Amino acid sequence: MGIVTADIGISLDGFAAGPNQSLEKPMGEGVDGRLHTWMFEYAEQHQAEIDAITTAGAYVMGRNMFGPVRNQWPAPDEPLGDWAGWWGDVPPYHAPVFVLTHYERDPLELTDTTFYFVTDGIHSALDQARELAGDADVSIAGGAETLNQALWAGVVDELRLHVVPLTLGAGERVFDRVPPLDLELVRERVTPEVAHLTYRVRR
Amino acid sequence: MGIVTADIGISLDGFAAGPNQSLEKPMGEGVDGRLHTWMFEYAEQHQAEIDAITTAGAYVMGRNMFGPVRNQWPAPDEPLGDWAGWWGDVPPYHAPVFVLTHYERDPLELTDTTFYFVTDGIHSALDQARELAGDADVSIAGGAETLNQALWAGVVDELRLHVVPLTLGAGERVFDRVPPLDLELVRERVTPEVAHLTYRVRR
Repeated sequence: MGIVTADIGISLDGFAAGPNQSLEKPMGEGVDGRLHTWMFEYAEQHQAEIDAITTAGAYVMGRNMFGPVRNQWPAPDEPLGDWAGWWGDVPPYHAPVFVLTHYERDPLELTDTTFYFVTDGIHSALDQARELAGDADVSIAGGAETLNQALWAGVVDELRLHVVPLTLGAGERVFDRVPPLDLELVRERVTPEVAHLTYRVRR
Repeated sequence: MGIVTADIGISLDGFAAGPNQSLEKPMGEGVDGRLHTWMFEYAEQHQAEIDAITTAGAYVMGRNMFGPVRNQWPAPDEPLGDWAGWWGDVPPYHAPVFVLTHYERDPLELTDTTFYFVTDGIHSALDQARELAGDADVSIAGGAETLNQALWAGVVDELRLHVVPLTLGAGERVFDRVPPLDLELVRERVTPEVAHLTYRVRR
């Protein structure tokens, strides 16, 4: 059986997104693409880290990471409607994706992936993801709130932080309200664009 | 003229000390020595980083980092009294140290260093430190509140974070209320005990 991994791009002060996320600024104010420049503009230099993300056997993500609803940023209690997500017809997730939401919805089949909508919490999402992942890893794909839930629940084996050299001062904070963790460095690679720091979460 | 550097040991979630600092637990609850294990228990492996700290020509620090008063953790408005600081008769600072405080006090001469007490703010402390440092660097020695003041004032040239593989969940947070910063990686070395990440602060 694989492990549960989690990848998240964060600012040096620990934010995975800026404040006031909106359809126009899905990463929040003051961020633009800067937390993910390494992935897109410098993809070649970071292929190993990108490959490590995209080889998971299944993913779990929060509903804001799946996408907005009816061209508006959804309120937390709004259903996801028929929106097909941020990810276009060929999402970068070439494996099943389990989306945490409060609203039931039929699975959405796209090229190479299916989005499943899970209404009964992160443990259920992980169980379903593990079943479809087989021997491969299950990846917590973000955002911060979903990762924090997973850390809080003690289900993350390997935490891969991608720390970008800027601070935001406000926004969605990784580790927010998560009890203290003891970690062990298992891999690292630091470049001008991003510090890739991978930790095993000790139990 | 030297530059202004700042060294601070932090948890992966950005705390330089835990909550509820006290005389018994000067680093706050749940920390013990763990944010500085690399400096003390693994000093040999981190000599280069320790040398970089100790070669400054002068230091600026917050009053809690200087030490408690009358065997009690001082309230923010309490004078420093006659306390000789945390650092014993031979402090690790072999250069003048300027302590930010609200209370005037005569300089305290110890082996190889003098502690000066500055009541008119961080800019004044830095000016005085620069004058005594000559061509050497001036180092902001911490804690988080003093570093945040310096970052907020835009006076830090080189920020040296020493990131320890644990999270605290609460305490004194680096970057708290500091406006967004744009940084440039200038040096890095990652070990199991600590990730040394040095950034130039862009203006």
